[in-house]
Amino acid sequence: MNPDPPSALALAHIRVVLVRTTHPGNIGAAARAMWTMGLRQLILVMPERFPDPDATALATGATEVLARARIASSLHEALAGCALAVGLSARPRAFAGRVLPIREAAQEIVGCATEGDVALVFGTEMSGLSNTELAQCAIAATIPANPEYPSLNLAAAVQVAAYELRIAAGEHRVWTAPQFRQATFDEIEALYAHASRTLTALRFLNPAQPKRLLPRLRRLFGRAKLEREEVNILRGILARVDQFVERDRDR
Amino acid sequence: MNPDPPSALALAHIRVVLVRTTHPGNIGAAARAMWTMGLRQLILVMPERFPDPDATALATGATEVLARARIASSLHEALAGCALAVGLSARPRAFAGRVLPIREAAQEIVGCATEGDVALVFGTEMSGLSNTELAQCAIAATIPANPEYPSLNLAAAVQVAAYELRIAAGEHRVWTAPQFRQATFDEIEALYAHASRTLTALRFLNPAQPKRLLPRLRRLFGRAKLEREEVNILRGILARVDQFVERDRDR
Repeated sequence: MNPDPPSALALAHIRVVLVRTTHPGNIGAAARAMWTMGLRQLILVMPERFPDPDATALATGATEVLARARIASSLHEALAGCALAVGLSARPRAFAGRVLPIREAAQEIVGCATEGDVALVFGTEMSGLSNTELAQCAIAATIPANPEYPSLNLAAAVQVAAYELRIAAGEHRVWTAPQFRQATFDEIEALYAHASRTLTALRFLNPAQPKRLLPRLRRLFGRAKLEREEVNILRGILARVDQFVERDRDR
Repeated sequence: MNPDPPSALALAHIRVVLVRTTHPGNIGAAARAMWTMGLRQLILVMPERFPDPDATALATGATEVLARARIASSLHEALAGCALAVGLSARPRAFAGRVLPIREAAQEIVGCATEGDVALVFGTEMSGLSNTELAQCAIAATIPANPEYPSLNLAAAVQVAAYELRIAAGEHRVWTAPQFRQATFDEIEALYAHASRTLTALRFLNPAQPKRLLPRLRRLFGRAKLEREEVNILRGILARVDQFVERDRDR
């Protein structure tokens, strides 16, 4: 077994704290959102209903996050031992700490989370965190949103925040498609020479008065950054055309 | 009325295309996710059930996005007139176009969307886009995720993508708390002078052998970047201590 890389360690130190959640389905969906981004510490402060079949159903493959969720009887208890608490808040209000967009807050959280636990705190569905709850956080983080309708679903907000934490932790590798070999300079030049011969044979190009035809083709294929296989396909097409031109000449 | 800024114009040109969505609730939640980020063009390709009360319930404040959603009988039809189509795909596969993380794809989408419509295409819940569907897209975008469980809920994926589009469009302003005036250099120096007098009077500091006490206090308060009101509070505390020390001396 390899030891966890530092980024995975940072994600393991992040607690997602949901305060007074009303709908158990949102707890399940939040657990799923967390686990898709590699977060696993869920703390529920006075949830209205939990455990609940709705929570389990919406957690789908993240049932272990749900099974290991801790229940706390106050936000204070949920934050015990944390080096930093960051509260999510969509609406402007008096707040003594710093207000940061979630992308910047994620940097600070991950920076802190290599040493000890850090909490990301979400309020109740209808009204978010109270001023008293937010005052227990050093940073208020906010997700930029449509001012006409900034009301993200709770699990959707958890998803965006967890995504930013994963990126901040450096886990931004994505899948790649199989790579194709780029064509070399001489392969491409041989293609242009072939094209020039074929177009001349077709009497589409007059070498005495070439106009802008070849430069335009060079511009097009240059922009496309030809791969070797594509050069082969194009030369195959040209060779086939050559056969027809020759047959026509022989007739 | 002000004309729409260029960023709002870009967001208005983005089509979210959901292909063969199974659960109408996900369509509603996706509409809500879109509208929180200012996206409003929703196209549904062969949805299993729509319209549906579940869709309406989960759209909450985004019912207009739902009401204006267009139904298409094929992906081809949904993409008609688009300058660029980007397909979301979580899993590695053969793909002839470019594969980009959603953050980079969002830049390209917004760059293109100032001229014409651009489509962001999401596949069905269980299996995503088919290879044939993805092949109609020039770019495959992917959301970095936990390799053990990369399965974002459909609406959660729409939320993350829409969020990145809003940020790429330059709409990253967030609320700010009321600002407090920073303390000036001389206010802070006066505080240290006062603290030095009081600590001497308390016989906590011996001016003949000051050790590291004052530099440590300077280090602490320097890091905290004192505000004027905080300096006033600290000097108030010192003044109150001064009174007790004097009273003690008079006794």
